[in-house]
Amino acid sequence: MTDSKKGFSQDERKAVYRVLRERRDVRSGYLPRPLENTTLCRLLDAAHSAPSVGLMQPWRFIVVRDPAQRARVHEVFLHANEAAAVGYTDERGALYAQLKLEGLLEAPQHLCVVCDTASKQGHGLGRRSMPETSTYSVVCAIQNLWLAARAEGIGVGWVSILDPYAIKDLLRIPPGAELVAYLSIGYVEEFAERPDLERAGWEERASLASVLRSEYFDQPYLLEEARQ
Amino acid sequence: MTDSKKGFSQDERKAVYRVLRERRDVRSGYLPRPLENTTLCRLLDAAHSAPSVGLMQPWRFIVVRDPAQRARVHEVFLHANEAAAVGYTDERGALYAQLKLEGLLEAPQHLCVVCDTASKQGHGLGRRSMPETSTYSVVCAIQNLWLAARAEGIGVGWVSILDPYAIKDLLRIPPGAELVAYLSIGYVEEFAERPDLERAGWEERASLASVLRSEYFDQPYLLEEARQ
Repeated sequence: MTDSKKGFSQDERKAVYRVLRERRDVRSGYLPRPLENTTLCRLLDAAHSAPSVGLMQPWRFIVVRDPAQRARVHEVFLHANEAAAVGYTDERGALYAQLKLEGLLEAPQHLCVVCDTASKQGHGLGRRSMPETSTYSVVCAIQNLWLAARAEGIGVGWVSILDPYAIKDLLRIPPGAELVAYLSIGYVEEFAERPDLERAGWEERASLASVLRSEYFDQPYLLEEARQ
Repeated sequence: MTDSKKGFSQDERKAVYRVLRERRDVRSGYLPRPLENTTLCRLLDAAHSAPSVGLMQPWRFIVVRDPAQRARVHEVFLHANEAAAVGYTDERGALYAQLKLEGLLEAPQHLCVVCDTASKQGHGLGRRSMPETSTYSVVCAIQNLWLAARAEGIGVGWVSILDPYAIKDLLRIPPGAELVAYLSIGYVEEFAERPDLERAGWEERASLASVLRSEYFDQPYLLEEARQ
């Protein structure tokens, strides 16, 4: 029996559930020490082992370390954030202004994650009916990287308050490729127990029951009964 | 020091990397024994702890157990698969015809995963510039569930050879909500060492170097140098 045929032990299962539970979106507290190349490659290998439609593996990872480039990306954020802030008024606007929504200058490296939608790999399998699954494969890779990073004590922050076309311009991403995510990555001292937006009072955690349905979208799942 | 402040031990890290590496897209070998409700809820809790833009938590999970409904979904697959098969000719067509691309009838339960794009949760944070991130949050939840399932000895298969509108119709999913994924779920005896499509010769694993770039999309990452 090879290792991969053995089931996960109780301890291994606990570790898996722990990383799923304790992963955080990190926007502050990055340490200046850059990631060693071997460490970064472990994270990228984890991403690269994600599922992909038709085994297309359409993810492309651009490692951005140049401080000048990181500062330019930060400018793109500032611009988009200003535009977004205008949309909130009164208390919600005051709360928005206080949020720390990115750690682009502090994190010693960024990762821009792109979907090479035009790639012939996978021979189109699974994408005739749902072409958007190529992008979804890339998101699976991002989540893999995020979890591996958490286990290594490395924070990852996903910054979506950006004009994707401005980023594509800066990073010379061709029109045929799609910007999926822009991440900041770096070592941190600690991880918050609860998500930043929850602690700041921006939004509450929904209950599991509120997102579950049985058989049909409009039919609730009787969770309490089910748990018995 | 609370548990969540402690770093991951060497063994915990190994377990995390193991689950990332050994997760498989399962299209066959499902056992008839249905998932206990408590087990299914653990998987759904794992999904529900995914990151989401603005803490929007837009995922909605429909558990489908009714055999008649599962058979209807299988019919939707057959229809889409027939249309897809026509697109391949010669050797590729012969290979496509041999692939087992779903386990919808064998798996005792399905999970339809939907994005409630219209939800006001999260107050639009992060979605002014990149509205597609609500869907990406749902994909992160799917990957979480997939990994938790692997650790529990439960197979998950993502079926994208489906007309999403036909599925929305069957499951009474309103126009405002988006079908993101349709999954089969069930216990399995074992997991394949390599992805089905790789073993069948449909597509090869790409090297990590081929998907990495440095600073710009068109600039290679010198991986061998970096690994030293």
